[in-house]
Amino acid sequence: MNAPRPVRAPRGTQLTAQGWPQEAALRMLQNNLDPEVAEHPDELVVYGGTGKAARDWPSFDALVRTLTTLRGDETMLVQSGRPVGVLPTHEWAPRVLIANSNLVGDWATWDEFRRLEALGLTMYGQMTAGSWIYIGTQGILQGTYETFAAVAAKRFGGSLAGTVTLTAGLGGMGGAQPLAVTMNGGVALVVECDPSRITRRIEHGYLDVQAASVDDALRLAGEARRDRRAVSIGVLGNAAEVVPDLLARGAQIDVVTDQTSAHDPLAYLPVGVAFEDWAGERAKDPAGFTRRARESMAAHVEAMVGFLDAGAEVFDYGNSIRGEAQLAGYERAFAFPGFVPAYIRPLFCEGRGPFRWAALSGDPADIAATDRAVLELFPGNEPLERWIRLAGEKVQFQGLPARICWLGYGERDVAGLRFNDMVASGELSAPVVIGRDHLDAGSVASPYRETEAMADGSDAIADWPLLNALVNTASGASWVSIHHGGGVGMGRSIHAGQVTVADGTALAGEKIARVLSNDPAMGVIRHVDAGYDHAADVAADRGVRIPMREG
Amino acid sequence: MNAPRPVRAPRGTQLTAQGWPQEAALRMLQNNLDPEVAEHPDELVVYGGTGKAARDWPSFDALVRTLTTLRGDETMLVQSGRPVGVLPTHEWAPRVLIANSNLVGDWATWDEFRRLEALGLTMYGQMTAGSWIYIGTQGILQGTYETFAAVAAKRFGGSLAGTVTLTAGLGGMGGAQPLAVTMNGGVALVVECDPSRITRRIEHGYLDVQAASVDDALRLAGEARRDRRAVSIGVLGNAAEVVPDLLARGAQIDVVTDQTSAHDPLAYLPVGVAFEDWAGERAKDPAGFTRRARESMAAHVEAMVGFLDAGAEVFDYGNSIRGEAQLAGYERAFAFPGFVPAYIRPLFCEGRGPFRWAALSGDPADIAATDRAVLELFPGNEPLERWIRLAGEKVQFQGLPARICWLGYGERDVAGLRFNDMVASGELSAPVVIGRDHLDAGSVASPYRETEAMADGSDAIADWPLLNALVNTASGASWVSIHHGGGVGMGRSIHAGQVTVADGTALAGEKIARVLSNDPAMGVIRHVDAGYDHAADVAADRGVRIPMREG
Ligand SMILES: NC(=O)c1ccc[n+]([C@@H]2O[C@H](COP(=O)([O-])OP(=O)(O)OC[C@H]3O[C@@H](n4cnc5c(N)ncnc54)[C@H](O)[C@@H]3O)[C@@H](O)[C@H]2O)c1
Ligand SMILES: NC(=O)c1ccc[n+]([C@@H]2O[C@H](COP(=O)([O-])OP(=O)(O)OC[C@H]3O[C@@H](n4cnc5c(N)ncnc54)[C@H](O)[C@@H]3O)[C@@H](O)[C@H]2O)c1
Repeated sequence: MNAPRPVRAPRGTQLTAQGWPQEAALRMLQNNLDPEVAEHPDELVVYGGTGKAARDWPSFDALVRTLTTLRGDETMLVQSGRPVGVLPTHEWAPRVLIANSNLVGDWATWDEFRRLEALGLTMYGQMTAGSWIYIGTQGILQGTYETFAAVAAKRFGGSLAGTVTLTAGLGGMGGAQPLAVTMNGGVALVVECDPSRITRRIEHGYLDVQAASVDDALRLAGEARRDRRAVSIGVLGNAAEVVPDLLARGAQIDVVTDQTSAHDPLAYLPVGVAFEDWAGERAKDPAGFTRRARESMAAHVEAMVGFLDAGAEVFDYGNSIRGEAQLAGYERAFAFPGFVPAYIRPLFCEGRGPFRWAALSGDPADIAATDRAVLELFPGNEPLERWIRLAGEKVQFQGLPARICWLGYGERDVAGLRFNDMVASGELSAPVVIGRDHLDAGSVASPYRETEAMADGSDAIADWPLLNALVNTASGASWVSIHHGGGVGMGRSIHAGQVTVADGTALAGEKIARVLSNDPAMGVIRHVDAGYDHAADVAADRGVRIPMREG
Repeated sequence: MNAPRPVRAPRGTQLTAQGWPQEAALRMLQNNLDPEVAEHPDELVVYGGTGKAARDWPSFDALVRTLTTLRGDETMLVQSGRPVGVLPTHEWAPRVLIANSNLVGDWATWDEFRRLEALGLTMYGQMTAGSWIYIGTQGILQGTYETFAAVAAKRFGGSLAGTVTLTAGLGGMGGAQPLAVTMNGGVALVVECDPSRITRRIEHGYLDVQAASVDDALRLAGEARRDRRAVSIGVLGNAAEVVPDLLARGAQIDVVTDQTSAHDPLAYLPVGVAFEDWAGERAKDPAGFTRRARESMAAHVEAMVGFLDAGAEVFDYGNSIRGEAQLAGYERAFAFPGFVPAYIRPLFCEGRGPFRWAALSGDPADIAATDRAVLELFPGNEPLERWIRLAGEKVQFQGLPARICWLGYGERDVAGLRFNDMVASGELSAPVVIGRDHLDAGSVASPYRETEAMADGSDAIADWPLLNALVNTASGASWVSIHHGGGVGMGRSIHAGQVTVADGTALAGEKIARVLSNDPAMGVIRHVDAGYDHAADVAADRGVRIPMREG
């Protein structure tokens, strides 16, 4: 066929492939391109700008054809979205091995990547796009929820109730902020300069109300804070004006962050430019626009530091706004930390991180049953309980029903084994796949995000994601992937993924027991090695072996 | 102990570890540091400048301790020479997984590497140093032999008899040239400016004679050429003078190459500088020295192009002399090709490449027996027969007895299975390990060497070595490694290695059958994908599956 067409994964228990691991890869590939899931399915783009599931339509067809006939002791090799080989392996081996967008260091640039892409020789796989485990915006929502839960745990006794979080940006990532804050019980006050973004977020249920003015927003926020009511409030304005204004007024703000697209100065609206004139001004004088945007970011960050000085919890949410403000000459830009070192790394030390699964049946009842199982398995984990309950209420499935939550070392395997038993017993109507994204403890080297400011300075060491991929391959994962450049771009990250199928067989159980403990164990190990005491305690308590500490 | 000490692998059939795969890793780690094998064993440096087998002595001790107790269903993780974890896997999984020197692209520089190394966070693993399968200088000799055999095959009907090869440089790599040429039946005329290097090569049996002068050298070479006698002749001089001189005289030269260390202009002696003054001149004025060295290289390369125009076979042997000559303004520098595109790539298209093994018994008789087995298995392969015979005569073992030769797809598994049978039957007195180096078809991305000038421009795509490591992990290799920067330095290569143990068991046979066909299959696949018809023919003939060509 070789041409764009609507793609949708088969549902139910009828196999179209030679076994469930192959069937799972086939369905998840197709699911990634489901119009409900993918941003631009005709171009095979799943999410994240140009993150693709297959290199081109002929490659997609060859993937489907090969997966359909692949035996349980064969392995298909995928090089940046194209199937390049099928080799005889064995039943413990992954059915698919994937390498996406990898380039030798000196050539690891967007220019060389684009050149090779234009020649049809590579594709950008992002994280879960090219490794067939994207589940829609639930992933972003949950990651953001988890971050705010960690803020709450660190500073506010586990809940944001009675606090106001001030942030800006309601775009692709940032739009998850208001709902993530209210799911943690807090008040979100979000500044956005694009009125259509505010409207859309309200329509989709991610934002509760739009305030008529900054005054109105402050009043709404203050009341909700006092009443410990969770509510999210959007306010139209330029963050570089509104945030300093709120500081000057002495507004009661407890948490401050930002998800405007500050990483690209042309995508940050400077003070003095009307929203309507943005495109024109930027096109007319990109250099001047950049300078003005940076000056505005400096004002924005200076106000964030003001809130910090006033006692608020302040963090950079991965958009480089500190770096841009510093370029504009503001000296205290790095007075507040990035979100990973501040909140996420302690979780990584426990091997805690993303755990997602999808029901190959297509039946939402299967996810409901697994939700109940997770709640049963981990009683007393209040943020987890809250997330599962609220996700059940608020998250619309896109494509195959799926769920994501964060679990630690010693938990993921327990959940995976339970799911496998539920498949075996018929409690679930078909197998489930279990994977994760790449905001992860032991499978990522990304010095601007996951491995920023490691205690020992090892931010750029890329042995870890490679070992992670090798370990998952050696432990029985159904498919394993190694990627370059996800999230932060070419030259800036190396990361690995795994997906493991729970088809109810004893063999799947053996594999799950290994993969879902070894994968998070890599997070514990990586952080022990970097000198984190908390990780060393976790390793000692739970029996993760560290050879340098033995003998 | 934690301090330098002499290390030597145990010999014989007594296990010190829990099984032969673990024992093999233990012995090969120790063997890499045997004073007979390693260049600077006290510093854990095996070869290639600073290529190490373990990060530091405490790491070495922890490696030994861990390997000694490691079970047959456990896997040890090694991050740049340090054991960082032990995880439960299964009996088909590798016992050791290794990642050496890997850095995220934007940080993939010597500066950042040195910074991290000084912090004790990484080490340079080169290729076979950090993955425990170095076997001494035999490897270099054999690679050079294979290159000249390929020159002979391409141009001279399979033998260099009756031809003269002109080259320069008798250093660490280059010193193998004269013996490799005479093993192919030819006459080698080698220019070297350092008298001690000539003397040493004669002492070690790598060079036959030193000529008294260029006239003398030409006479000796001419006679041997006429008589079709294999002889190697060293001549003291500066290649930038001698090579143009020989061209001007109309010398009968059939093959021209060079292995002076031209990649570093400070390591190339310019015309007009006496050998004795080299160090002083270089220190006094590095910039001026560099300019003069480049000018000399331009004269040297211009003469090489002169021989090309006169009909000789001329190639760059991986020392960047063409690039340096071009920097000096010589326009036709790239008139002759690099050795990989010229001779090696057609072999890579067949999955042909390095295959080495070592006898864990320590008994040279085991290698003699495997030599005979290889000759029996592949009758009619004249260059192989010649190599095995001459290697048996000329190569002194260093550390555990070992052999290397080049075999293709469909051959390596056959040889490996035979060795395994010989262990089982007692024909060999102990198990053997089978691995390879990284001048390889499907496990390297190295745009200045192995993947220079790929037909489709895919030189820098690094998905292939990563897939290779994943495939070997999924096929039953005993240990698998992923390295950065071997040979050509930081930022310039990504490559993977595997070693598989033949311990005579049926399971080892199953693993060997898969690893030793899948590993070279990656070479065939990589070259089919890059558009080489010869590889496509090989794949079609021998049944290597290429999904894009099916259906
Ligand atoms: N924390 C993480 O893990 C993570 C992950 C991905 C992206 N990011 C970063 O987060 C940022 C946001 O990502 P996104 O996908 O939502 O981007 P986006 O471009 O979709 O949205 C940015 C929003 O900011 C608004 N904006 C720009 N300038 C403004 C100003 N001066 N005042 C008020 N609003 C303004 C824009 O109108 C837009 O709606 C990016 O910089 C991205 O790199 C972080
Ligand atoms: N083909 C490959 O696979 C491969 C592998 C490794 C290295 N190399 C390259 O091969 C080159 C040689 O490597 P090596 O390890 O032998 O280097 P080396 O430094 O040990 O030896 C170089 C020799 O060249 C001699 N020399 C320098 N200038 C000269 C001149 N003007 N005239 C005559 N002799 C001169 C030196 O005295 C020295 O003996 C290097 O550039 C290296 O990068 C190629």
